[in-house]
Amino acid sequence: MTFNPPVKSLDNLLSQFQAVRSYSLNICAPLEAEDFVVQPIIDVSPPKWHLGHTTWFFENFILLPQLEDYQLFDERLNYFFNSYYESQGPRILRSNRGNITRPGLDRILEYRQHVDQHLIAFLERQEDGILSKNIYDLIELGLHHEQQHQELLYTDIKYILGHNPIHPIYKAKTSIDTATARPAQWLALEAGVYEIGHDGTGFCFDNELGRHKTYIQDCLLQDRLVTNGEYLEFIEAGGCQQFEHWLSDGWEWLKGLDQRAPEYWFQQDGSWWQFTLHGLEKLDPNVPVTHISYYEADAYARWRGYRLPTEQEWEVACRKYSPELTTKRGFAEAEQHHPEVAQEGDYQFFGHTWEWTGSAYLAYPGYPRLKGALGEYNGKFMINQMVLRGGSCATSTSHIRLTYRNFFQADKRWQFTGIRLAKDA
Amino acid sequence: MTFNPPVKSLDNLLSQFQAVRSYSLNICAPLEAEDFVVQPIIDVSPPKWHLGHTTWFFENFILLPQLEDYQLFDERLNYFFNSYYESQGPRILRSNRGNITRPGLDRILEYRQHVDQHLIAFLERQEDGILSKNIYDLIELGLHHEQQHQELLYTDIKYILGHNPIHPIYKAKTSIDTATARPAQWLALEAGVYEIGHDGTGFCFDNELGRHKTYIQDCLLQDRLVTNGEYLEFIEAGGCQQFEHWLSDGWEWLKGLDQRAPEYWFQQDGSWWQFTLHGLEKLDPNVPVTHISYYEADAYARWRGYRLPTEQEWEVACRKYSPELTTKRGFAEAEQHHPEVAQEGDYQFFGHTWEWTGSAYLAYPGYPRLKGALGEYNGKFMINQMVLRGGSCATSTSHIRLTYRNFFQADKRWQFTGIRLAKDA
Amino acid sequence: MTFNPPVKSLDNLLSQFQAVRSYSLNICAPLEAEDFVVQPIIDVSPPKWHLGHTTWFFENFILLPQLEDYQLFDERLNYFFNSYYESQGPRILRSNRGNITRPGLDRILEYRQHVDQHLIAFLERQEDGILSKNIYDLIELGLHHEQQHQELLYTDIKYILGHNPIHPIYKAKTSIDTATARPAQWLALEAGVYEIGHDGTGFCFDNELGRHKTYIQDCLLQDRLVTNGEYLEFIEAGGCQQFEHWLSDGWEWLKGLDQRAPEYWFQQDGSWWQFTLHGLEKLDPNVPVTHISYYEADAYARWRGYRLPTEQEWEVACRKYSPELTTKRGFAEAEQHHPEVAQEGDYQFFGHTWEWTGSAYLAYPGYPRLKGALGEYNGKFMINQMVLRGGSCATSTSHIRLTYRNFFQADKRWQFTGIRLAKDA
Amino acid sequence: MTFNPPVKSLDNLLSQFQAVRSYSLNICAPLEAEDFVVQPIIDVSPPKWHLGHTTWFFENFILLPQLEDYQLFDERLNYFFNSYYESQGPRILRSNRGNITRPGLDRILEYRQHVDQHLIAFLERQEDGILSKNIYDLIELGLHHEQQHQELLYTDIKYILGHNPIHPIYKAKTSIDTATARPAQWLALEAGVYEIGHDGTGFCFDNELGRHKTYIQDCLLQDRLVTNGEYLEFIEAGGCQQFEHWLSDGWEWLKGLDQRAPEYWFQQDGSWWQFTLHGLEKLDPNVPVTHISYYEADAYARWRGYRLPTEQEWEVACRKYSPELTTKRGFAEAEQHHPEVAQEGDYQFFGHTWEWTGSAYLAYPGYPRLKGALGEYNGKFMINQMVLRGGSCATSTSHIRLTYRNFFQADKRWQFTGIRLAKDA
Repeated sequence: MTFNPPVKSLDNLLSQFQAVRSYSLNICAPLEAEDFVVQPIIDVSPPKWHLGHTTWFFENFILLPQLEDYQLFDERLNYFFNSYYESQGPRILRSNRGNITRPGLDRILEYRQHVDQHLIAFLERQEDGILSKNIYDLIELGLHHEQQHQELLYTDIKYILGHNPIHPIYKAKTSIDTATARPAQWLALEAGVYEIGHDGTGFCFDNELGRHKTYIQDCLLQDRLVTNGEYLEFIEAGGCQQFEHWLSDGWEWLKGLDQRAPEYWFQQDGSWWQFTLHGLEKLDPNVPVTHISYYEADAYARWRGYRLPTEQEWEVACRKYSPELTTKRGFAEAEQHHPEVAQEGDYQFFGHTWEWTGSAYLAYPGYPRLKGALGEYNGKFMINQMVLRGGSCATSTSHIRLTYRNFFQADKRWQFTGIRLAKDA
Repeated sequence: MTFNPPVKSLDNLLSQFQAVRSYSLNICAPLEAEDFVVQPIIDVSPPKWHLGHTTWFFENFILLPQLEDYQLFDERLNYFFNSYYESQGPRILRSNRGNITRPGLDRILEYRQHVDQHLIAFLERQEDGILSKNIYDLIELGLHHEQQHQELLYTDIKYILGHNPIHPIYKAKTSIDTATARPAQWLALEAGVYEIGHDGTGFCFDNELGRHKTYIQDCLLQDRLVTNGEYLEFIEAGGCQQFEHWLSDGWEWLKGLDQRAPEYWFQQDGSWWQFTLHGLEKLDPNVPVTHISYYEADAYARWRGYRLPTEQEWEVACRKYSPELTTKRGFAEAEQHHPEVAQEGDYQFFGHTWEWTGSAYLAYPGYPRLKGALGEYNGKFMINQMVLRGGSCATSTSHIRLTYRNFFQADKRWQFTGIRLAKDA
Repeated sequence: MTFNPPVKSLDNLLSQFQAVRSYSLNICAPLEAEDFVVQPIIDVSPPKWHLGHTTWFFENFILLPQLEDYQLFDERLNYFFNSYYESQGPRILRSNRGNITRPGLDRILEYRQHVDQHLIAFLERQEDGILSKNIYDLIELGLHHEQQHQELLYTDIKYILGHNPIHPIYKAKTSIDTATARPAQWLALEAGVYEIGHDGTGFCFDNELGRHKTYIQDCLLQDRLVTNGEYLEFIEAGGCQQFEHWLSDGWEWLKGLDQRAPEYWFQQDGSWWQFTLHGLEKLDPNVPVTHISYYEADAYARWRGYRLPTEQEWEVACRKYSPELTTKRGFAEAEQHHPEVAQEGDYQFFGHTWEWTGSAYLAYPGYPRLKGALGEYNGKFMINQMVLRGGSCATSTSHIRLTYRNFFQADKRWQFTGIRLAKDA
Repeated sequence: MTFNPPVKSLDNLLSQFQAVRSYSLNICAPLEAEDFVVQPIIDVSPPKWHLGHTTWFFENFILLPQLEDYQLFDERLNYFFNSYYESQGPRILRSNRGNITRPGLDRILEYRQHVDQHLIAFLERQEDGILSKNIYDLIELGLHHEQQHQELLYTDIKYILGHNPIHPIYKAKTSIDTATARPAQWLALEAGVYEIGHDGTGFCFDNELGRHKTYIQDCLLQDRLVTNGEYLEFIEAGGCQQFEHWLSDGWEWLKGLDQRAPEYWFQQDGSWWQFTLHGLEKLDPNVPVTHISYYEADAYARWRGYRLPTEQEWEVACRKYSPELTTKRGFAEAEQHHPEVAQEGDYQFFGHTWEWTGSAYLAYPGYPRLKGALGEYNGKFMINQMVLRGGSCATSTSHIRLTYRNFFQADKRWQFTGIRLAKDA
């Protein structure tokens, strides 16, 4: 299994640090100055905020406590770029991020450079390439934290461009997809006691700990994601007009939409179109449906007579059927900036969409909520959110893990979210 | 186990019907005419609405489909008293229930009488006391539905009176509690595979089905509920001013309160008082804390270094340590209209407060969401709610079950809700 | 001019007091107990609140300061029945009035009796029937205050009944109107300096003072109110679908309505119906249109090519053409509880609907905002409200005055409001 | 009187056009790219929106209807830059202006250039420098429209910078004010009939027409604006904690403020500071108080025992005491970007702050609301706004007029608004 390449030597950490930090800037390369500033909905942060906040993480949690003589680059930026850490003092209201024009992008790029230089120098000063585990872990956490924000950069940029009536293109398409989705098959799981959760080797977030036993019933999971074409059948059959498929909250949510279809779908002149990072395109029925809420995923599954897998079923099935991350994915390497048609032998567990599970985001048995700032990373959000598994086309390959627990509220759909069907055996 | 007395013969059903229906009126006996009308918050319904809606259930689901020549008592009441059944047509907006003065109480009492007479006559007409299982089950469901609303009647009346600056007394107290809470002990569970869920014998709601295996880790549950005095220590230690014990949503919720204390607690002249159905009283530190939200229960447990039990742990522990409903509880029989100090040998699993568990309200493996109106009873609410177990002092004894899954949103606290602590072994 | 009959002798005041106080109870006679409690919108107060608040006025402003040994009937009622007087201490939130079930109606009727007895005894104790002008004025103000609430009782009861799907009848109709509205004519005013405002003889509210000069341009006012039939032409011509007739705020307001028609109009089976205090009736095209907002009045006038009169024009025209209150109106004496067709010679300046003027509610030149509680009666509302003139069918005859300045926000329409057209000469 | 220099010849119009258009760009010169995009409150528009919208006005109302072969620069910009003209078709929701990053500033500058070139060429093509009055008037309106947006540019930029915790400087100060405010004196007006309103010679907005007679009572107006120091006395005397000075709506508004002081005032280490376009400065007690709401102006005046002038009184007093625009003001020419201490002989009627009057914004007698798009310019806003007179330090000198009627809702204070006191004689 290669999801967590061991990164014990400092050399490795240094090169990882440089790679991850520069990739954030690469993501922003196609943007115009104005794109860096706005916050059209509260979930979306201005791209320049992401660039600043990921830098703040390293300054605030590593440079400041570790370097005796470290001077803050700018005291005010410490206030600007705290996200939600109550323990780290006051901060700009989340809803106010899109109103802050200064410091401008140039200043934030200087901030990045300043922090990077100090952090690299700090690493290079360590004798014999040995670093205390505590600091090593913090830097590694900072890199994974930045990779989370890289995915947010993609989805937030998509939201900013996709809600502009002009529909600007983020990246031009170089080839056209002509593949056809294969018929879905069922992957079987046998009832019994299984172990799930991270085993503690290599990096993981605290919420994946500890590894524990769980009982799984006999069940079946589909061997690929639900496609646009399949979801369109649901719409055309009137499924979005029939309350009986929907959760009560979902039905109310649906009534508030301008249009009862996935985010970024548009109906024009009798055809369906979809906004992607490649611009506005005719809807491709073969690629996985994405940008849907839990409510939509759940209603679609019920309409088909199926259900969503639990996160336990998902992890056990993935471990059994797709333990290796076989295809290189992630926008860093990919031509396509959108989920693709499942290739032969790819069960699409990784690299296309995050998959809504039927499990609420709660603590694993034995989960110890950390003290201090890092205790605010995951534990305090364990209410009213559903777990998503896998990893999307916007997730960096080195950030994907079989035990990864992503989580969002049931109405969120600006991420690359999708559906895998399951049923009792 | 006697939680679900077998009710196979029609005689039994008839006498149950009469007992349950008249108990609803008994609950309302101390009210003044004005108390029947108002809806101070959206969760609370006017008492006269409860009286009408429970009657509508029998008319709409039994009399109307079963009696060929049945005439609706009043067509408009069918519209008035639908609660949330999309399948049963349009209905008054929930938020508008408290603005509807006509039909008045007298008319609703006539409605009850009319429906009762027809239903009793219908039962008496059945040859040899035999009833098709389908109809039998529906009537039994109607009775348990009415028992749910009886509990709501108590808590809604408490809200209406308790938020009146005059603090009117619902029922005068006849004796004074002087018992002292015993020190809490731990009840142990051993790791392993257990079965939970209802076995299908006797009545249960659909969400308790089907019985299934689950894996429990080694753990310990306290042998009584948390008391007012223990919760007060949390407040006095500043726990409601320290974000680190709280879920993020809970912390925001807390900031919106007028006072960071359980519902119905008041601070006057340096002392704490509590409004109960017996009026405003000095806070008794020995009785279980109640009217708290999930946020408060979760924060309290974390502050103590413990956690809430899962619903699986709760059910396994209850089956092991307290399978019989030993003490008679329920306001019908009780002097006290409030949770009481735990008696020797009573682990307080039933009859004091509903206990917040750390489990989200989701479908059991194999849960079949029913088609039609009854599919709207439970299944469509399976999102963003937490499970509560046990049964409160306001729950009728014959309505309590070891497998009962109650559920509310994390911020709700107008029910008699409370806390049992748990920890990993 | 007989609008303000001099009421100098105490005998007269005593009999007035008794007449006004008992009329409030007469208004409520047709109600059921439940009707007294609710508050369906924030503008509407529960009828029992009106009965209590008008009583509180006499207790709080007269009995308490004047009678040395006066004991409050119930200290808590003093808190309950303060409306908006910041100077008189804390009070129940306005939005919470409809949630307060106790004290019940019976207790409030006792309160009325108690205060009435003490006030009457106090008046009878005065030697030689002489009362200090200050107290005399306060009692007179209390009576006019109660007459204002009598009009609110009618309109609030209408709202409570009219928004119940059952459409209960407040008072059965005894005869059927068959009159036809006469063609409207124009009443001319010549340009020049006029005096308007109250001259200080007899009762008036502070906002009618002081009498002052104003310049009026040549203009014309219609000699009757706009009818339902005329307003229906506006609707049927698409006037409520064309933004160009509407104020910008009015257009937004209109888009938020369930139906773009006056309050209490309903369309059923292709016909228009109107809810009145006599129940649901076919729309009578000859009677004045009523229950319309300023936005609707203004848009209608503009669509016709006319405008609303200013309050100065209205007062000058009324003084010139209709100085006497010729017809007895007011529900106390009337069979009809709705505006009626204009009779020969009646210009409808009084007794049908309050007429929206094109004037904002602001201070007259020389208006002295009073100090103390009475300064809160009128002056503090002088922003974002428009003046209405005349007096409606729900206004008591003895409460109507040529100089009376009523005022409401532009979107309010639960009062009997209507339209008189004007144009430049 | 020189407020409206006659601009009959085309040469004059051409040079005015060029001067006004380039001044908009000058205002934006100190901005960074990010400053052009955001909309921190709904009243504030992104600077690039102002640049586009003023250009749209000329393209949409002149080039498009007048030039047969005119091609829209970009069809989509026509949609982007419509503000509130219902007659001109759909447009971006006002609340969404700050989320639109493309077209970027560069594209909008091209748009300006394109439209300017076509409009200048069009003017130069006119034979003998003669232009139909209709088109001449439209272009002149377009220039005054742009001058309105220039003032908005200043105040919106101030808002964007002033609500950034960094408090960026728009323009550095070159000198320090040391003048002391002179004691205020009273300017007297005698009762009588006066004429107010524009006489139709030279440019004016439709709402200043027509000139008409009005009756003024004997009264007195102060000969300068209220200063920071005077307003501070009000605060320090507790005036913002005492409801009796405030309108009821104003008192509620006040309770919602973070701080009961004018916009841009900050308390730091026991001193008062004020954010100006020159950055954060110690509060100067001698300069006029500005950025206050009508509620504050009205409460301050009442606390002093005075009142605000009516707009009629203001205009008559200004015509009598200050008919000429004596001092050159406007930021184009000024060093100071803030109201200044009144100089000897300057009554501050112009060029410091807009002065709240006690008059609601309503139609003058004889005001004809125009048909078509221009009817949407002023008339449709005549509700729930108060009139302001004069012209602020941010108003261009050539845009100031004695008859100018500015208007805002009572709670708005992001403009340079201020107070002049008045009293009855």
